[in-house]
Amino acid sequence: MEVTNKYIVIKHHIEGAPKESHFELKTEAFALSVEPGSDDIIVKNLYIAIDPYHINRMKSYSASQNSIIQATQITPGEAIDGSVIGKVVASGNAKFQKDDVVMGRFTWAEYSLVKEESILHKLESSEFPLSYYLGVLGPSGIAAYMGFFKFCRPQNGEKVFVSAASGSVGNLVGQYAKLSGCYVVGCAGSQRKVAFLKEKLGFDDAFNYKEETDLNSTLIRYFPDGIDMYFDNVGGEMLEAAIANMKAFGRVAVCGVISEYTDAGKRASPNMLDIVYKRITIRGFLSVDFANDFADFLAETSDCLRTGKLQVIEDISSGMESIPSAFVGLFNGDNIGKKLVKLSS
Amino acid sequence: MEVTNKYIVIKHHIEGAPKESHFELKTEAFALSVEPGSDDIIVKNLYIAIDPYHINRMKSYSASQNSIIQATQITPGEAIDGSVIGKVVASGNAKFQKDDVVMGRFTWAEYSLVKEESILHKLESSEFPLSYYLGVLGPSGIAAYMGFFKFCRPQNGEKVFVSAASGSVGNLVGQYAKLSGCYVVGCAGSQRKVAFLKEKLGFDDAFNYKEETDLNSTLIRYFPDGIDMYFDNVGGEMLEAAIANMKAFGRVAVCGVISEYTDAGKRASPNMLDIVYKRITIRGFLSVDFANDFADFLAETSDCLRTGKLQVIEDISSGMESIPSAFVGLFNGDNIGKKLVKLSS
Repeated sequence: MEVTNKYIVIKHHIEGAPKESHFELKTEAFALSVEPGSDDIIVKNLYIAIDPYHINRMKSYSASQNSIIQATQITPGEAIDGSVIGKVVASGNAKFQKDDVVMGRFTWAEYSLVKEESILHKLESSEFPLSYYLGVLGPSGIAAYMGFFKFCRPQNGEKVFVSAASGSVGNLVGQYAKLSGCYVVGCAGSQRKVAFLKEKLGFDDAFNYKEETDLNSTLIRYFPDGIDMYFDNVGGEMLEAAIANMKAFGRVAVCGVISEYTDAGKRASPNMLDIVYKRITIRGFLSVDFANDFADFLAETSDCLRTGKLQVIEDISSGMESIPSAFVGLFNGDNIGKKLVKLSS
Repeated sequence: MEVTNKYIVIKHHIEGAPKESHFELKTEAFALSVEPGSDDIIVKNLYIAIDPYHINRMKSYSASQNSIIQATQITPGEAIDGSVIGKVVASGNAKFQKDDVVMGRFTWAEYSLVKEESILHKLESSEFPLSYYLGVLGPSGIAAYMGFFKFCRPQNGEKVFVSAASGSVGNLVGQYAKLSGCYVVGCAGSQRKVAFLKEKLGFDDAFNYKEETDLNSTLIRYFPDGIDMYFDNVGGEMLEAAIANMKAFGRVAVCGVISEYTDAGKRASPNMLDIVYKRITIRGFLSVDFANDFADFLAETSDCLRTGKLQVIEDISSGMESIPSAFVGLFNGDNIGKKLVKLSS
């Protein structure tokens, strides 16, 4: 059986901020059966995670010498790969059967032809909504959990600052910080988000960075005694101001650098003298680095979900056609929580 | 008994590079006896350590909000404190006797009036020359040992880059790196220093940064497969280039930032995307942080000295009058190894 498969491509490499016109919806004839002797798997995609880091893969130069998946360049005209959850419709691989629900790196398409190594998990349980496995129980949750607990190692009463705090990772860091007995302040880009952080997620305080003229003064106001941990999702001036306001032995977890993704001129120039004299540690990390801790993460986070301690914030669009606007919206501050595109139930 | 005591002061706060004319030699009448009932100690100073970080204390603004000794402001006209080794000439404190050799934070003077808490060690052994206790067995050695072994955690065969490699800390890091089976490249500011690093200290390679026009290309040349550990003493463009050339899971130990001490406009703007994608850790540290590891440091380093595995590089001037030129020389690249001023035998 053959269907018309829709998929999304970039027309050309993207410099600066992405626009919807940079993307194109393409179609192809797609067989829903596997060739005899092949161990391919055909997946009907259900949810696609829309993450800011892809912008770095869409540039004309490689974002890093490193050959990690998160940095591999996307080729214009070819299907984009990312975190996707879907259902097996045909399998030549004995490990996967029709109707298995699988999560992995598949194409931004209605259907994906998948190799075994692209599948990260087969979901055995249906305790939680499937979309959770791309967010709170997937890469966003892992990044928040590992960066906050394994690197920052919070102590009760410590002061935590989170940027892009209403984003997919930031909102979870803030919630984990509150569960750890920390004082947490988040920044976001609108009054609506600020109210959401304080009223819905229980942040101790929050501010709209767009209304601030001097971020150093802002942070002195919110942290008169200094910051113990800064969970950085944005880089740039916010990182400089955070380092200027860290306490001795402060920790900076660098999860993302969204302000620099579309404008390399916005690079942070932190005061290195602060880093020495205050013995600050800055660490970059990726959620893929923590395979050994994954079971702990899944058990603890699932438990927080069952007991209602952790709220799940998702922003879900529908249909392949919504991918370009969903992706562009990440850079315009449109979303609150994890941005997903739903393709099918 | 009273003597004329010579001491060094700054005439005013110093911005930018220090000059000899910024300093003044002053004299005072100084009693060599302790007032009855006082627990003061009078020390005749033997060696004074001349360290670049004092420039940050000589500025008109505090270098850090942090109240650590290394950041306390120096007052123009008043005696400067720093790492000094001397001999007790009179003591009202039962813990210290005449002729004890003590190391601590005393004044840049021929004689210092000292409180017990200013004394870090009483030297019981005279196995090594006294000057070593300000360098290889003192703060410089601790910084090199702790930053390299305790933070960088070198593995056999890893690639190490050291800046200011002929300086008091850098030369020791390079030697420790070779003892650990690492490949080590240093940079310094003259051909004489480069030759010294390679021929005398056994660095695998070295270069004169003043002859390089593009530090990124330079580091690609010396580390075609990337850098595992960068021991940073300079900051600025060298730090940016090192981060651009780090391998995955690279470690940057930030010990000093000399290029930024006299020119805040030289701040590094490292590519944070490299820091995330390569999971780089950057850590500032001070030698005072490692009290728990001091015994290990002293035992291991003393053993390296006894067996001749570690060479001691010192650059010693004589007399109080030489302090201004010794200090200014640090910023002109005059010294190789630990810069000391000897006052008395």
